[in-house]
Amino acid sequence: MPPPPRRTAKAEATRATIVAAARRLFREGGYDATTMRAVADAAGVSLGNAYYYFASKEHLVQGFYDQLSAEHLEAVTIVLAEEPAFSARLAGVLERWVDVAAPYHDFATTFFRNAADPRSPLSPFSPESAAAREATVAIHREVLAGADLRVPPALREDLPELLWLLQMGVVLFWVYDSSPDQARTRTLIHGVVPVVDRLIRLTRLPVARGIAGDVVALVRSVRAG
Amino acid sequence: MPPPPRRTAKAEATRATIVAAARRLFREGGYDATTMRAVADAAGVSLGNAYYYFASKEHLVQGFYDQLSAEHLEAVTIVLAEEPAFSARLAGVLERWVDVAAPYHDFATTFFRNAADPRSPLSPFSPESAAAREATVAIHREVLAGADLRVPPALREDLPELLWLLQMGVVLFWVYDSSPDQARTRTLIHGVVPVVDRLIRLTRLPVARGIAGDVVALVRSVRAG
Repeated sequence: MPPPPRRTAKAEATRATIVAAARRLFREGGYDATTMRAVADAAGVSLGNAYYYFASKEHLVQGFYDQLSAEHLEAVTIVLAEEPAFSARLAGVLERWVDVAAPYHDFATTFFRNAADPRSPLSPFSPESAAAREATVAIHREVLAGADLRVPPALREDLPELLWLLQMGVVLFWVYDSSPDQARTRTLIHGVVPVVDRLIRLTRLPVARGIAGDVVALVRSVRAG
Repeated sequence: MPPPPRRTAKAEATRATIVAAARRLFREGGYDATTMRAVADAAGVSLGNAYYYFASKEHLVQGFYDQLSAEHLEAVTIVLAEEPAFSARLAGVLERWVDVAAPYHDFATTFFRNAADPRSPLSPFSPESAAAREATVAIHREVLAGADLRVPPALREDLPELLWLLQMGVVLFWVYDSSPDQARTRTLIHGVVPVVDRLIRLTRLPVARGIAGDVVALVRSVRAG
C-alpha cells in the first residue's frame, strides 16, 4: 500500500481540479463512459498523477460525494440559521439537496446502477461513504438542535440518522423522478415532512411512546446484522 | 403487431415449460448471461417458438413474476385462513415471500440492476408488472379483510396498496441482504410489522387521525405525477 497523498494546499487544489473535471465528464457523458484517462486529460494532469490522488473511478465518486455534500451544507446554512420550525428546517434541507444535485440528475440515473448495491463502495451505506454520510447526519442533528420540537428521549440519539435514512429514501425517489425539474420529488418532500413532523410530536403521547422505541430498536437490529 | 398467442391448455403448458427453463437458467447463470436461445434449448422448443410466446427476455421475467406470485399466493393461503391477528397475517405474508423467493436470491442481486428503474418493464411499478402487482395487492386486501383490526375510513381504500409498498421495501432490503438465509430480512419483518400494526391502530385516535389522511394524500399525489 502506498502512503495516502499528503494533504498540502497544492495537493488539495489538484484533488479539487481532478474532481471538478470528473464531475463535468460524468454530467456530460455519464459514469460508465468516463475513463480515468479522460478525467486526467480534462484536468490537465498526467494519468499517473490522477491515479496518485484517486486509486479508481470509484474513489473519484467519493470526492464528488464530498464536494456535493459540502455544497449542500453551504446551501442549508441560511435555512438552519433562520428557520425555527422543524418542518421548515427539514423541508429546506431536503429541497436544497434537490437544488444542489439538479445538474447531476441525468448522471444519477445511469450512475445509480453502480451505487444501489450496499456492498459497493459507492453505496451511501458503505464504509467508504462514511464521510459524506456523517456530514449529512450532522446536518440533521442541526435541523433538530435548532428546532421548536421536543424530541422524546427514546428518539434523541437515533433521530438524526433516521432523518438521514429518510433523505436517502427521497434521493432514491429523485433518481427515478423523470418529471420536469424533479417536481414530483418536491411534492414528495412537501407531503412527507408534515407526516414526519406529526409522527415525532405524536411520540410524546404515552399511547405512542412505545412506537418510537420500536422504530429505534428495529433500525439498530437491522443495522447491526 | 402479431395477435397474442392463444391461451389454450397446450399453449399454457408450453409457456410454463419455457418459464420454468428460464427460471432454472436465471438461477444457475444469472440474468444477463441467459439468452433466449439457451432458454429455448433448455425448454426443448425452437427459438422461433420461444419468441412466439415471449417477445423478449424481459417478457420471460414477467412470466417468472407471475409464477412466483402464484406460488406466494398458495403459500399464504393457510396463513390467511387460520391467523386472526393482523400482525401475524402480515408477518406471515412477508415471510412466506422470503421463503418462496429464497432460491432466487443470488439471481435477484444481479437482476435488480435491470429492475430498479421504474421505466423498465421489469420494475414492480411498470404497467407490464400490473398483473403481479395486482395479485400482491389482493393478498394484502385479504390480510386486512380477515384481521382483528378496525381500519379507519381514511385508510381503508389505500391501505392494501400501502402494504404492497411496504412489501416492496422489504424486497429491496432482501435483494441486498447477504446474511445467511436472509436472516436480517426476517429480523426486519419481525421489527417492522408491530410498528405498522401500532401505527394503524393509532390512526383511530382523534389526535392521530390526520396523519392517516396525510399519508394517503401523499402517496396519491406522488403516484399521480
